[in-house]
Amino acid sequence: MHPPAPPPLERAGVAIVGLGLLGGSLGSALHGRCARRIGVVEPGDEQNAAAACAAGIVDDVLELDEAVAVADMVLLCTPVATVLDLLPRVAAAARPGAVVTDVGSTKAAIVQAMRDAGGEAQFLGGHPMCGGTTAGLSAIDPEMFRGAPWALCPVEPDAAQEPSLVLELLQAVGAVPVRIGADEHDRTVAVTSHLPYALAQALVHLHQERVAGDTRAAQLAGRGWSGATRLAAGDVAMWRDVLVTNREHLTDAIAALVAQLQQLARVLDQDADGSSELQAWLERGFPHRTG
Amino acid sequence: MHPPAPPPLERAGVAIVGLGLLGGSLGSALHGRCARRIGVVEPGDEQNAAAACAAGIVDDVLELDEAVAVADMVLLCTPVATVLDLLPRVAAAARPGAVVTDVGSTKAAIVQAMRDAGGEAQFLGGHPMCGGTTAGLSAIDPEMFRGAPWALCPVEPDAAQEPSLVLELLQAVGAVPVRIGADEHDRTVAVTSHLPYALAQALVHLHQERVAGDTRAAQLAGRGWSGATRLAAGDVAMWRDVLVTNREHLTDAIAALVAQLQQLARVLDQDADGSSELQAWLERGFPHRTG
Repeated sequence: MHPPAPPPLERAGVAIVGLGLLGGSLGSALHGRCARRIGVVEPGDEQNAAAACAAGIVDDVLELDEAVAVADMVLLCTPVATVLDLLPRVAAAARPGAVVTDVGSTKAAIVQAMRDAGGEAQFLGGHPMCGGTTAGLSAIDPEMFRGAPWALCPVEPDAAQEPSLVLELLQAVGAVPVRIGADEHDRTVAVTSHLPYALAQALVHLHQERVAGDTRAAQLAGRGWSGATRLAAGDVAMWRDVLVTNREHLTDAIAALVAQLQQLARVLDQDADGSSELQAWLERGFPHRTG
Repeated sequence: MHPPAPPPLERAGVAIVGLGLLGGSLGSALHGRCARRIGVVEPGDEQNAAAACAAGIVDDVLELDEAVAVADMVLLCTPVATVLDLLPRVAAAARPGAVVTDVGSTKAAIVQAMRDAGGEAQFLGGHPMCGGTTAGLSAIDPEMFRGAPWALCPVEPDAAQEPSLVLELLQAVGAVPVRIGADEHDRTVAVTSHLPYALAQALVHLHQERVAGDTRAAQLAGRGWSGATRLAAGDVAMWRDVLVTNREHLTDAIAALVAQLQQLARVLDQDADGSSELQAWLERGFPHRTG
């Protein structure tokens, strides 16, 4: 017999594990949209828990096992390595039929861990593609999900429709569901998200090596530079997990980008008057927006 | 005998050659700050000239030689290759003691051309580090220079104080003067400006090759992607000139960035659990802001 289906979102208890930028923003966005928002923080982080309650981001805070045991839906909003650590415990504590999903930036390792976790919950990998570079309660923004793609990665390739609680969640926060396999997700975001972070980091390293020591030269950075390096200010612990769990696709994307740069260098070198070949390469890279 | 010094900005006639984003924004920012703003457009572009007059960006429009002959200061606001083409003609037409400067993104070639141009004008290379990715009159913004660095590159290494008209110009538009040699300028902006453009272009190329053909995958791009590729939407003709005239420094910066990326790939590969070495590399690239 199937376990009982969880209630609709407006009558559901939602456990939010991790009250950083994404977890906090989800809690804030779910205000008035579900029956109860239960926060879970790292042991010893009671100060953050009290602040989250005071700010109205969650209704109350419980220990992990208690929170999961009473929740109809569990949202894992910690760094990826912590999600991987917590999944067996969450699977053991979850009610039959409860929905367990996450917001991690890589999906293959998490979906595999969900597959291995056992228990009677319904698992689904998730990844809202938004977020900022500022951590902490002050950066929380319930509107940050509006219009953003939210990848949904099934645990089994032949999975049926996603749990309706997840679709209701996305609708409540205004995100756009993108159904995609975990491996295809990871290969894609290696290009659209993890590589841009790696490039911002590499630019800052290069600047430290070549420019920062010269006071006058260091002043020659405008808004283009700020934009190109903005992502490097992201939380290092969060990104370290992301890069490690997507190592193969990212290494591959780095190699492909290096090939593009080397092609540009070749075109630059051969095209002494900057005429046809360089112009054609640049025009090919001009983003013709579709939306 | 020295030629007569030009009047202060409020009594000066200023010729603005090229009424694109930078020229148009300068014209707009100089409203009420100088005696006369004379626009110069490409032959055949009379429609743009009429629109610029109607929008109050310049007071009137003349042919190049006429405009230069009556101007106390000439601002060359065309793409770099056009600045190089125009300099001998501008030098020949300029009044003795008039100030001739430019806003081009590379400086060594332009400063060399100024050195070779002859005539009795006072030349100074200039580069305001601002600007956007949208061309045309609608993007003009008189506030775009406020707080932005504006490189000033002398034509002779032992040049005296910059012409006061240029310093008054920067003050009028709110830019911050950065005095720097043309070659050091070019080497620096290869890292802080031209490389970020090249990376945005390379990312778009890679996306076209690997992602764009898959409808679902192509949806997986959030604000991080938009920010990382924003510069690629810059004017291709303008950027082609920039890349060509800074070819050597840019090629060198590309090679240095590739070395950074290859180091990241090595660290990723060796650091199986994402612990100390990767974390240290990422922390080194975290931009500790100084301002």
